[in-house]
Amino acid sequence: MIVVMGTFRVAPEHIDTLLPLARKVAEATRAEEGCIQYGYAQDIDDPALFHVAERWTDRAALMSHAKSAHMAEWVAARSGLGFHDRMIRLYETDEGVAI
Amino acid sequence: MIVVMGTFRVAPEHIDTLLPLARKVAEATRAEEGCIQYGYAQDIDDPALFHVAERWTDRAALMSHAKSAHMAEWVAARSGLGFHDRMIRLYETDEGVAI
Repeated sequence: MIVVMGTFRVAPEHIDTLLPLARKVAEATRAEEGCIQYGYAQDIDDPALFHVAERWTDRAALMSHAKSAHMAEWVAARSGLGFHDRMIRLYETDEGVAI
Repeated sequence: MIVVMGTFRVAPEHIDTLLPLARKVAEATRAEEGCIQYGYAQDIDDPALFHVAERWTDRAALMSHAKSAHMAEWVAARSGLGFHDRMIRLYETDEGVAI
């Protein structure tokens, strides 16, 4: 399994513009083959700091996602909204354990 | 390295009460030995759905955290705020790769 976790920032004045775009790409992504979890969340200390939480069955599913039309649309749209500080990491792991 | 990722829900009417408590435990936790990352974030589709994003150097650091006074305080406080649907998983992995 693949866990993807990290954060990115947007310009505070563009948060309201970004939110519907983020909801759209997240919804489209959750429908993709091999997508176990895909969500965006706003940090409780800083609403301009977005958390990314993803789980994928395997790398192939994630690679296919990366080439999807909705991701291309999302990458283009966010670039005009002060998107920066993207720190996202991929972890190869097992299903994990509930704690 | 240990990645901890998941979500929990609180009663919508208690979100405002929960936020300062979550900020407090998160701040205390980030100061702990072995804590690489520890954050809470509100899902962009549902503000009552909280995401948990943690990274620890090893299990011992996480176990020590679990026994900390600030976690005991947090667990007690959240129980009165409609805390439910806790779905958090621990993943043993390496440092991951930036993507």
